[in-house]
Amino acid sequence: MTSPTPAESAFDRETAVAVAPDADPGRPTWTASLSDAWNIGDNPNGGYLLSPMVQAIRSHTGRPDPLSLTAHFLRPGLGGQPADIVAEEVRSGRRSATVTASLHQGGKERVRVLGAFGDLANVAPLGLDVPELGAEPPELPTPDECRDRRRLEQGVELPILSRLDVRIDPQWAEPGRGGRAEVAGWIRFADGRAPDAVSLPLFADAFPPSLFSLVGRVGWVPTLELTVHVRRPPAPGWIRARFRTSDLVGELFVEDGELWDSTGQLVARSRQLAVLLDDGR
Amino acid sequence: MTSPTPAESAFDRETAVAVAPDADPGRPTWTASLSDAWNIGDNPNGGYLLSPMVQAIRSHTGRPDPLSLTAHFLRPGLGGQPADIVAEEVRSGRRSATVTASLHQGGKERVRVLGAFGDLANVAPLGLDVPELGAEPPELPTPDECRDRRRLEQGVELPILSRLDVRIDPQWAEPGRGGRAEVAGWIRFADGRAPDAVSLPLFADAFPPSLFSLVGRVGWVPTLELTVHVRRPPAPGWIRARFRTSDLVGELFVEDGELWDSTGQLVARSRQLAVLLDDGR
Repeated sequence: MTSPTPAESAFDRETAVAVAPDADPGRPTWTASLSDAWNIGDNPNGGYLLSPMVQAIRSHTGRPDPLSLTAHFLRPGLGGQPADIVAEEVRSGRRSATVTASLHQGGKERVRVLGAFGDLANVAPLGLDVPELGAEPPELPTPDECRDRRRLEQGVELPILSRLDVRIDPQWAEPGRGGRAEVAGWIRFADGRAPDAVSLPLFADAFPPSLFSLVGRVGWVPTLELTVHVRRPPAPGWIRARFRTSDLVGELFVEDGELWDSTGQLVARSRQLAVLLDDGR
Repeated sequence: MTSPTPAESAFDRETAVAVAPDADPGRPTWTASLSDAWNIGDNPNGGYLLSPMVQAIRSHTGRPDPLSLTAHFLRPGLGGQPADIVAEEVRSGRRSATVTASLHQGGKERVRVLGAFGDLANVAPLGLDVPELGAEPPELPTPDECRDRRRLEQGVELPILSRLDVRIDPQWAEPGRGGRAEVAGWIRFADGRAPDAVSLPLFADAFPPSLFSLVGRVGWVPTLELTVHVRRPPAPGWIRARFRTSDLVGELFVEDGELWDSTGQLVARSRQLAVLLDDGR
């Protein structure tokens, strides 16, 4: 598959931001036009909502990579509608810039972000004699041997799978039959766009909830907060990912994720606090 | 040990906040007087800086528990000096309130927080037939069989250990001799104050860096970002904790922590992005 140019890539087109013409320099504002092609059910995927915010922060700070990105999802987004994004640089340092941003639609704030952006190509090497550490990727069947996420019984419509190609290890593909709350598999853009640091927060939020394999069909799982640490720029090719929930108290659970690139390097970690709704809505 | 009243507790006295007399209702402000008794070297511990911010957010939102708390450390704090705290409620919902807060000293912002606060006593039970999940606590020697943190060779002065009683599993107490980046042990307030949800973010940032057991003495380890999820109100008694680093790229590493109460229940999780300085300063 040939990688599309940014102009051809659905992700780049549908997460593009433009500086608002009357932007206040102390409070820079961007506009975006959100697509409904990234919906989970009736709502845009949370990782998709983050993506134009990441684009705005990159252009504002001149720092390409989200070293740490925390998003609080305040209200569902509105697919197919315009959005305003406001960003504020809290501090700019040598190593990173700390920034906060908000996404608004229909006069209401939908997402609030706090993050530290830097340049992974320029992370200082360590003078100490310590090897790099990074979790080993799990052994998985090949993407072709995995189950296409479109063929899982998930109890919710997934327009997002027109944009993302998600393959699930068959071990975790039967609702309620996995024996524990885990999911692993592969992900890439459906149109062949190469992965980069911007796409990793999206990829960290695009798998079925890992509770699916323990509990069964879980429907819409609202995320209260998602934090992603991008650790390395990913190589081209499939991203391998694993998500696990070992922490469920009442309706609130914490899910941890790890993402590796096609060379087996750990490229991102994620953790989210989310809600398991009784009625699967 | 009898638990001191709030008026007697060093933690409560030294994290107390007062509403600033000329506070703007849309931008409520508190003042605090930071102690230097919680320093690591010359700088207040990051978890200690967070504590008066948590107190201010609790009083502002009426929600006692930090369900999710992300802090970006912008500049070192100033022990022994006054601080101003500003908070803003981003959204108030049934389940939680999302809030942002800033701590300023000497005219400069030192810490920026984004969090979701709720009431752990009222987390909705799950109607589904799913057991609560929570990582099992590690088997550890008793606190008396562990090494007092004051007796570790850490290459930095630790006034904070006048306030916190920290015991380290001997397996992780020899610098550079543990074989991997892990530390585990016990923690409580030195004056016997009982643990609560407010103290858990502090406890999550009060152990030696887990890289100590792999790398040796690491000195001051600046935290860029710390996220803590408080999961259950802790029972009285010692808190057991374990921290691990499995992710070091250049000078940046991610450390994960888990905290359990004296009944063995998981009460909090933490993750931080921090910097391993070459020269151990």
